[in-house]
Parts: sequence; structure tokens; C-alpha cells
Amino acid sequence: MPTQEIHDQINSRLEALYRRHRGEPEGEVVRYYPPEMKERRELFAVSLCAIDAGEFYHAGDSDFTFPLQSISKIFAYGLALEDNGREKVLERVGVEPSGDAFNSITFDERRNRPHNPMVNAGALVTTDLVAGRDSDEQLERILEKLRIYAGNPELTIDESILDPDAQSTDRNRAISYLMRSFGMISDNIEENLTLYGRQCSVHVTADELSLMAATLANGGVNPKTGERALDRRYVRDVLSVMHTCGMYDAAGQWAYEVGLPAKSGVSGGILAVIPGKLGLGVFSPGLDSYGNSVRGVRVCREISERLGLHIFANEAEDLLLQTTDPAE
Amino acid sequence: MPTQEIHDQINSRLEALYRRHRGEPEGEVVRYYPPEMKERRELFAVSLCAIDAGEFYHAGDSDFTFPLQSISKIFAYGLALEDNGREKVLERVGVEPSGDAFNSITFDERRNRPHNPMVNAGALVTTDLVAGRDSDEQLERILEKLRIYAGNPELTIDESILDPDAQSTDRNRAISYLMRSFGMISDNIEENLTLYGRQCSVHVTADELSLMAATLANGGVNPKTGERALDRRYVRDVLSVMHTCGMYDAAGQWAYEVGLPAKSGVSGGILAVIPGKLGLGVFSPGLDSYGNSVRGVRVCREISERLGLHIFANEAEDLLLQTTDPAE
Amino acid sequence: MPTQEIHDQINSRLEALYRRHRGEPEGEVVRYYPPEMKERRELFAVSLCAIDAGEFYHAGDSDFTFPLQSISKIFAYGLALEDNGREKVLERVGVEPSGDAFNSITFDERRNRPHNPMVNAGALVTTDLVAGRDSDEQLERILEKLRIYAGNPELTIDESILDPDAQSTDRNRAISYLMRSFGMISDNIEENLTLYGRQCSVHVTADELSLMAATLANGGVNPKTGERALDRRYVRDVLSVMHTCGMYDAAGQWAYEVGLPAKSGVSGGILAVIPGKLGLGVFSPGLDSYGNSVRGVRVCREISERLGLHIFANEAEDLLLQTTDPAE
Amino acid sequence: MPTQEIHDQINSRLEALYRRHRGEPEGEVVRYYPPEMKERRELFAVSLCAIDAGEFYHAGDSDFTFPLQSISKIFAYGLALEDNGREKVLERVGVEPSGDAFNSITFDERRNRPHNPMVNAGALVTTDLVAGRDSDEQLERILEKLRIYAGNPELTIDESILDPDAQSTDRNRAISYLMRSFGMISDNIEENLTLYGRQCSVHVTADELSLMAATLANGGVNPKTGERALDRRYVRDVLSVMHTCGMYDAAGQWAYEVGLPAKSGVSGGILAVIPGKLGLGVFSPGLDSYGNSVRGVRVCREISERLGLHIFANEAEDLLLQTTDPAE
Repeated sequence: MPTQEIHDQINSRLEALYRRHRGEPEGEVVRYYPPEMKERRELFAVSLCAIDAGEFYHAGDSDFTFPLQSISKIFAYGLALEDNGREKVLERVGVEPSGDAFNSITFDERRNRPHNPMVNAGALVTTDLVAGRDSDEQLERILEKLRIYAGNPELTIDESILDPDAQSTDRNRAISYLMRSFGMISDNIEENLTLYGRQCSVHVTADELSLMAATLANGGVNPKTGERALDRRYVRDVLSVMHTCGMYDAAGQWAYEVGLPAKSGVSGGILAVIPGKLGLGVFSPGLDSYGNSVRGVRVCREISERLGLHIFANEAEDLLLQTTDPAE
Repeated sequence: MPTQEIHDQINSRLEALYRRHRGEPEGEVVRYYPPEMKERRELFAVSLCAIDAGEFYHAGDSDFTFPLQSISKIFAYGLALEDNGREKVLERVGVEPSGDAFNSITFDERRNRPHNPMVNAGALVTTDLVAGRDSDEQLERILEKLRIYAGNPELTIDESILDPDAQSTDRNRAISYLMRSFGMISDNIEENLTLYGRQCSVHVTADELSLMAATLANGGVNPKTGERALDRRYVRDVLSVMHTCGMYDAAGQWAYEVGLPAKSGVSGGILAVIPGKLGLGVFSPGLDSYGNSVRGVRVCREISERLGLHIFANEAEDLLLQTTDPAE
Repeated sequence: MPTQEIHDQINSRLEALYRRHRGEPEGEVVRYYPPEMKERRELFAVSLCAIDAGEFYHAGDSDFTFPLQSISKIFAYGLALEDNGREKVLERVGVEPSGDAFNSITFDERRNRPHNPMVNAGALVTTDLVAGRDSDEQLERILEKLRIYAGNPELTIDESILDPDAQSTDRNRAISYLMRSFGMISDNIEENLTLYGRQCSVHVTADELSLMAATLANGGVNPKTGERALDRRYVRDVLSVMHTCGMYDAAGQWAYEVGLPAKSGVSGGILAVIPGKLGLGVFSPGLDSYGNSVRGVRVCREISERLGLHIFANEAEDLLLQTTDPAE
Repeated sequence: MPTQEIHDQINSRLEALYRRHRGEPEGEVVRYYPPEMKERRELFAVSLCAIDAGEFYHAGDSDFTFPLQSISKIFAYGLALEDNGREKVLERVGVEPSGDAFNSITFDERRNRPHNPMVNAGALVTTDLVAGRDSDEQLERILEKLRIYAGNPELTIDESILDPDAQSTDRNRAISYLMRSFGMISDNIEENLTLYGRQCSVHVTADELSLMAATLANGGVNPKTGERALDRRYVRDVLSVMHTCGMYDAAGQWAYEVGLPAKSGVSGGILAVIPGKLGLGVFSPGLDSYGNSVRGVRVCREISERLGLHIFANEAEDLLLQTTDPAE
């Protein structure tokens, strides 16, 4: 555990990083989700969680809660692996990046399954694979997991954002019935859609997001509580699909530039994992054309570069702890 | 450097691995390239090269030479990065897995460029990006690089396998003219096709392949000769595209199961990199439906699992050096 | 009206045609719908209805009833035109052959509408466009129309073949929700699917089918009853979409070889129109890979050739009424 | 043959039609081909040729010559049918509208052939099918045919518009090599491209265009010269593909609204056939988003409606010869 002095120093460096990115032009923002979030465009939070002691380093609105949205897909995938084993899950959902958008209606026709668990089709099958007598029990089991990852037994769904009749739900509904016509998913489409909607609506703060990331970085054990959230043997599977498919159809660009397993959500959150070291949680609502947070991508790229966190990096370009910051 | 005893022990373990996979059923073999290679289906070589001393551990036909084919794409990409810088290369070739086959005629329409340098379209642009007054000089510069990677100044093209009128060349020709109509590639299509064909026809042994891999694992410096083959800063770029796009449209499955940056060629070779540790070169001509070597994929999967080499692995399932082999 | 002698002569010629095609090899049959129909593969009916007197010439099982299936699409399209006018219907459903299968999930993205009213997507919107306070009234209005076309006030739905949970319904459901997500169709998806399923399940005989065709051939007036089934100005619209899109993705081949506006159904029926002259109804359950009746296509081709009915024909190759039949 | 009085009356009516459309807003014009043609946007010609005596009725710039471009495809198709027979041609080129743009790189995969002879892929194969010892003889035979259709032995190529390196040629080159890789086309790609380019560059006037149309309307015999341009039995084949595929990806809309077999070219010409009656030739360079002449489509639609020429029309809405024109 770092001394108070080092802790303060890191926090002050992160604060500087935060301020630099907070003020940057919003030129690339394509949209906000939900559109009302445009009124809150100033929102911005960066949180790092070190796995040695579950210590947080954060800046900005790290207490603001937002829905996980697609970030929830990775946790449901881990639970589906625990419930069914790797082989059975692979039969039902592939692990291949498809080059298509998250709401694509194309499938892996060779194997009659969605391309991967990070596109909506694959996430719907993943949720369907979570064990439970009914969707209430499935939801309870998902929530329970999310609470362990986040170290927050109060983690809950914000029902106010649920809208089963919305346009995006209709697309997921279409995807579901298409999959049912192919025999890819169970019969109870409507319940599964509701369950999936609820899973996506669980609210977290950026700090909770970084702790969830740190839990994955820590081999599946929450570094703050010591509770196991994910069977050790499936951590690498979750990180692998995050790495190749986690950032929508910009996943390759992210793997190239940032080089960390990560998952973004349309609510503006990004969770990134530095295995054995850190969890990273970022939130800022302005989205680029791929659906990833504009400031989130930028700040992650800078952190990865400065700390040399790219999984294939030879060295850090800079060190977060070095005393002078050339950019200021 | 390991003692002779340890060296012998590793070699004997590798020999056991080789024998196990050599005898396995060929049920999944879809085709051989060229078809005549079917007569040589017994060919099989595994070679490991440790970066500390450029020491080889190998089994099987590790002296048999075969053309690099698509494996050459990664070295040309590294050279193009050195010649043009990251930014300019990214403008011309993306880094996104496309979900399409290697000979796809689709492009990144948003950015008017091929999806990535591992599909043929992207590889043709990459070769086009290699500096040189003419294609002879470009070829000379590519050969020079390949020789440094392989530590073999005699490395050369086998002109006998070149067939500019073949069916696959016509497809590459079509891709090239399509790209020219989009302004994605230079005018000299035919010269570039010939150059690309020559680059693919450079012959190596499995030992050379593992040394080339070890050079990438060693930050771009050949561990045997000490010569630098690739600027340190571009090593991570090459490894990144290998990781997300290197194994044709089974890249995601490979990243999930094997978890190593790798590149395969239709001649049956696979090059895999364990950064900071090892280079791996495998050769066996029977191909699966994706165009990857059937035995090559299996043996790499086993090595990755036993040695715990998956980039997101928590631990090895087994150790190559442990004295008893439960599978025997 | 022909004399009894001529009438008999035509019937005897048609009988010969029927016998020739009845016995032909079934080599091209790909499937039967429903599969049980394979037990009834001998079923075969040909019916001609001349518009001057609504006189029937028929051979085979011309009294056997079968569901209209996709043939119903043309009558619903006519009704939608009457209810909404050409312009409003064109805003909602295009008239462009798409080259895709009948159950395609692609759309005319330029205009945010299904490609044409003969693919399922377009047919679902067409049914949605039929006026009525509720789906019961819509159904009643569709049935009423079909009865006028067929000259049979008893025409009805065979509820036994309705199966709302079937695989094909799931695909139509997926198409519907996808269209709802694009704003292409009304909210009441499930009711519309049920309505569409009922419309497809109306049962007719081959004689009724030829009378329905004759009604279109006669400018929209049933030649037997004198009742108007379709506003004169929309007859050409219905015939036009039949001509370019009526025979699934073999429509172009049909327009080339047979050259008549026609519509087929997966139940094995084909309705073809010779404007100003004849209606043609054929039924035989064996289907080719496009979903068209194998014997149906062949017999229509022969009738068109012998009678010179191709809309761009210069002359008949033969005449049905000529006394000797060289093929016998 | 009409009396001079009737002739003058028709001409004066056509002149009125011409003036109405000449002055209409150009709002829908998307582009001009070649772009320089924008300077000549006033160009506009309408020509009707009656088959009874090869009599012309025309208005506007009916002497201005422009290249046939894609209109040449229909004549080459007719010649390929004569040279090879229907069956052999169908093996090599389908007759199915594809829903794709004219320069599409998709093919009929079931039958390993281009979708139809009106898309560039199909037109390139069609030209390849024209008999001749070499491409010079093929060109001579195509030219000879075109001269018979147009009744002008001087009809020739404007070499000045040929540009073998242009962007569109590169796309055709790509399509050709792709087809060669599939075994769809002969080896001599470059010669065939040059031949095809020359065929497209034959220049005609609107009067010649309407005479070419009248030749097709007259069963293949030029009504002015009495020379046969096309074997009677293939006239219906040419008209059939024109009807379903002739107007690019707006062919269905045209068949619905205008209802005449027709072919347009990117130079702004449209040729339409009223079998047994008239040939129609229109020219105006402003193009819509499909590549069809904006004024050309409008004037054809009006002529079809007023004269009741739609192949499925019940009656004319108006008659060209009626003495008062309500629109003026």
C-alpha cells in the first residue's frame, strides 16, 4: 500500500490529467445517450483502482451514477461461463469480432450462433444462458454478481430508464425472434428482453466501475472485499472477448492504440483492465460515431501511453508519478 | 543460457509433444496449398526459440523450407511503419478485424482504406507503402529485413512457385484495381502485384520462423545476431494487428483459446510471439476451413495451455519442464 | 362464347398437356410445404379461364383446395391501393425487385421502406395498410375482396393450418419488429401478424385461382359474376409488381421465359394473367429452390410458348387449338 | 403513313410537350456525365419513330450526338444471342434484377454468372460472347449491327471520349479480373475492356436512338431501311431484360410507372420500345441518383400516360392527337 504522500501525488497527477481532458474541444461528439444527457455534457470522471489494496485514485464526478448498459455484457458472460462451462457457451455464442455494429442482425452462419457476446445478439443469448428457474432468479443472480464485482451490496436497477417499447428494444426484439427462428435462443423472448434491459440498467459510479475492473485485473477477486466474483479459470475468457470485441466496431483501433481489454457502454462509461495491476473506470457522456465515450477514449489512451500499459508495450513513454508534466 | 541438461530435457519434452500431434487424425483437414502438398502430409515441424540466447528447441522437419505466404505481411507492415510512420500508415490501412475472409473485397468505407494489413487488400497497400525508387528496390529492402529477422543472409525467393496468372492472383488483381478506382493504392498495380507475390514466396524453415518470432518477442532485435530488425516503437503495432487479425477469420477464436499474437500462412506455417520470452514457429501443410494449419493450431494451443502463455492467463496448467507428462 | 365443340377440343388439348407434365420426372423438387404435402405429390391441376365468358378449361385436381399463401399478397396490395391511393402506398412500400429471397431482412434504405410488396416485409406493411377499425374488420374486408375475385362467397380460412408459433412466423415477427424500430409499420405487430397469417390461409381451388387471374386480366371485373374486384386504375400497378417481383428471386427468369405477370405461393399454386384474354391457375405441391412449383413453372412455360402469350412475343410457336400435337 | 396534316399536328403536340419539360426545375439533378456536360444542361431532345413508315416526330436538339454508353448493352446482348443461342448465353449471364447498382461486384453465386446483362459485369461477359477472331472483328460486328439498327452506315466511335485509365474503367477492370478468377470470362481482359469501352462510345442522335428503338418495336427490322438488325426470336429476350433490368436500380419503379421496356445510359439518353408501334429516343444530360436522365424519365412517363402505352394499361389517360391540351 502506498504511503499517503505517494497517494496524494498520484491523485494530483490524475487531477491534472482530468483537467486537461475536461477542457478539450467536444468536436467529435456525435450524440448523447439518452439525448437529455447533452444537458450534462460537463460530466466527467476518471477512477483508477490498484489491486494491491483496492485503493482508489480519482478525479471529477466519480460519485455520479450511470447505467452500465453494454458494460454489463462482460459480467453476464462470466456468469454464463460459470453456469454452463466454456464449451457449452462457445456452442451458443462465438468469440469472433464481426466488423459489424453492436446491433447487427448478421450471425456466424457456419456455426449458427451470434458472432460474439459483445454484440447485442450475443449478449441476449448470454443472458439467456444465465441459470435460474425464472427470469426473476436470473436477475437476482446477475445482480448478486455485479454487487460482488462492485463491492456494493446496494447496487440496483434504475427502473426509470427502462422503456420496453423504445426503438432500440424493438431492434433487440427483432434480433431475438430472428434467433428464435434459427433455434439460437430459448422460447421466452419477452422475458429475456426484460431481463436484459434490467441487466443493462444497473447503475454504478466511476469508482465502482474501476473496482469492477480491478476485480477482473485481480484474477476475479474483489481486491477491496476479498470476495470472488468470477471463477479464476474464466477470467482470461472474459478479458479475451473484451480485448477483441469490447469497444464496438472500434475494438481493433482500441487494441492497437490503447492495448487493454476494455468494454464501453452507450451511457458513456468505459471499463478497462490492466491485469495484475489496475482497474480503470471512466465516464463522460459524449459519444463518438462508434458509440464510445469521446473523452473516455482519449483519457484511456493517454493513461495507457504514459504508464506503458499497452499489453504489447515495451516501455512507458512517461510515468504518471514523474514530477514534471511536459504537457502542462 | 540453460545448461545442456535442461536443454536436452526441454527438447525431449518437445519431441513428446511433436509425436503426440504428429499421429493425430487428419479429419479436419480441408485442403492443402499447393494441392501437391497433399503428398507431403506427414511434414510437421515445431520450433521454439528462447530470446535470452536465441537457443532453439525443435522437433520434426525443422529444416524443411516453405514459403512465408501471408506470414510475410507482418514484416512488410513493420517496414511500412518504419518508412512512413504510424499516422500515415493508419491513413492508408486500418487495424480493425473485419470478420471477412482474407481475400474479401469489402473495405472500411468510412475511412476509404482496407480494414487491416492482414487481409490481402491491406497487405497489398502495405507493400505499396514500402519505400524504394522502384519495385526492385522495394523487394531488396523487404528481403533485407526478412534476412535480419531470420538471421539468414541467404534467405531467398523460390521463383518456381510464382505464377502471376493464377486464380488467386486474379483476385488480388481485382482487389488492386478496385482499390485504385477508390484512390487507395498507387498506379503501378502490376508491379505491386509482382512484388507482393515475391514477398510471399520467400522460403524459410520452422527454425527460421521461430527466430523471426523471437525477434518480435525481443523488442525487434534478433536474439541470435543482436541485429535490430524493427524499430522498437513499432513492435507493439505489429503484435497488436497480429493479435486481433492474424489468424484469418478465426483470429478471435485464436485470441480466446491460444491468446498469443500470431500469423499464419496458407503454406501451413504459423508464427507466434510470446513477448519477452519466446518465439514459436510451426509448420504442417494440412489446412482447416479458415486456411490455418490444423496441426499447427492444435500444437500451439497445447503449448500455450501447458506453459500458461495466454496473454490473459493467470497461471500455467502444466509446465513444459515438469518431469512427468500425464498425457503419455 | 365458344361452341361446345371448340370447348371440348380445348379441354382435350389441355388434358394432353396435363398428362405430359403430370408424368415428368420430379428431379428438381427441393421441398414440399407443408412437408406432409410430400405424401400428395401426385396432386396437379391446371385451369384456364377465358375472360369473354368466364369459361373454364381445366385438367387434373382442379377442385382440390389449397391455401393462397403468398398469392394473397397481390390482392391485399390492390386493396391497399384502393384504400390509400398510389402515392401513399409507394411511400410505404417500394416496387423494386431486390434480388433477395422472400424472407429477406434488407430494406430500401434510401426511402426507409420494404423493397416491394411481394417480399414478406412489404406484404406485412401492405396488410397493415388495409383500412379497418381493427384487424377483424381488416380481415373481413380482405376476405370480401378475395370472394369477389374468386366468385365464391364461401371462400374461407382454413384455421387448421394456422400456427402462430412456427419458425416462419418468428422470422416475420423479427421483420415486423425491425420495421417498427425503423418506423415503417404500425404498433400492433402481433395483430398484424395474425391478420397476415389468416390472409395467407384462405383456401382456393385451381379453378378459383384461374378466375381470380381472369378478373385481373379483365381489368378488375370478375368475368363470371360481373362484379368489380379492383378499381380499374390500380390493375396495372398490381400486374406491374407481379411482373417484376412476383416469382420470388426467379422473377427475372420467369419474365424472360414465360413473360406473364404472375404470383406463386409456397403451397404450390401459381396465378398468371394474360391481360385482356385469360386467367391461368396451376397447382402442384413440389417446389424448386426458389419456392416455386416445379410442374407449375413448366406447364406455364409451355402454355406461354405454344400460345405465344409472352408479353413481348412476336408470335405463337404453336396454337393450343391446332389439331395435331407434335409432342405426342 | 399519316398525311402531312396529321404529321404536323403530332409534331406540334410533341413540341408543346418538349417545351413544358424543357423549362422544368432541375432540382433533382444529381450529376452530369462527363461533368463538363453541366455546361450544356439546356440540351434536350425527344424523338418518336413510328414503325409503320419509320416516320420521325421530334423536338429539341434531336441532331446532337452523344455516346450510347450503357444503351449499347442491349444491342450487344442481341448479337451475343444470335452468335451463341439463348441457352449458351443464359449459362454465362443471368436475367435476374439484382437490386444492386450497375457497377456492382456481386454475382449470381448459385450459377456462377453475373446477375444480368444490364449491369456492367454482365455487359462485359456479353461483349466477350460476341463472335470474332479478335477484338477488332468483334468491334466491327458490333458496329455493323448498331449501324443497321440506326439506319446510319456512318455511325462511329468518338475516340476522344475514350479514357482507358479512368476511375470507372478501373472498376470494370476489377470486375473483369474478379470474374476471371471465378472462370466467368475469357482471358483477354484488357482487350475486352477496350472493346467494351469502344462499344459504349458509339455516338448517336436522339433520332437515331428512336429509330433503334423502333427497330426493336418492329420485331428486329429497321422500319426505315427494311434491314433486319436482330433475329426475330431474340427480340423478346432483349425486351424482357430491358423491362426488368434496363433502368439501373430504378428498373422496378420505371416498370411500374412507365411500363415500357427501356434502357438508359449515363450520357443522358433513354431508349424505350412500344412493341408493334413506336420507338422513343430521349436525351438530356442531367442525371438522377440512379444515373437516369431526369428530364428523360419525366417526359417518358408523361408520354406513356397520355398515350396509354404502359404494357399493362387499360386505356390512355389522354391522346397525343387530341386537339386541346389541358396542361397548357
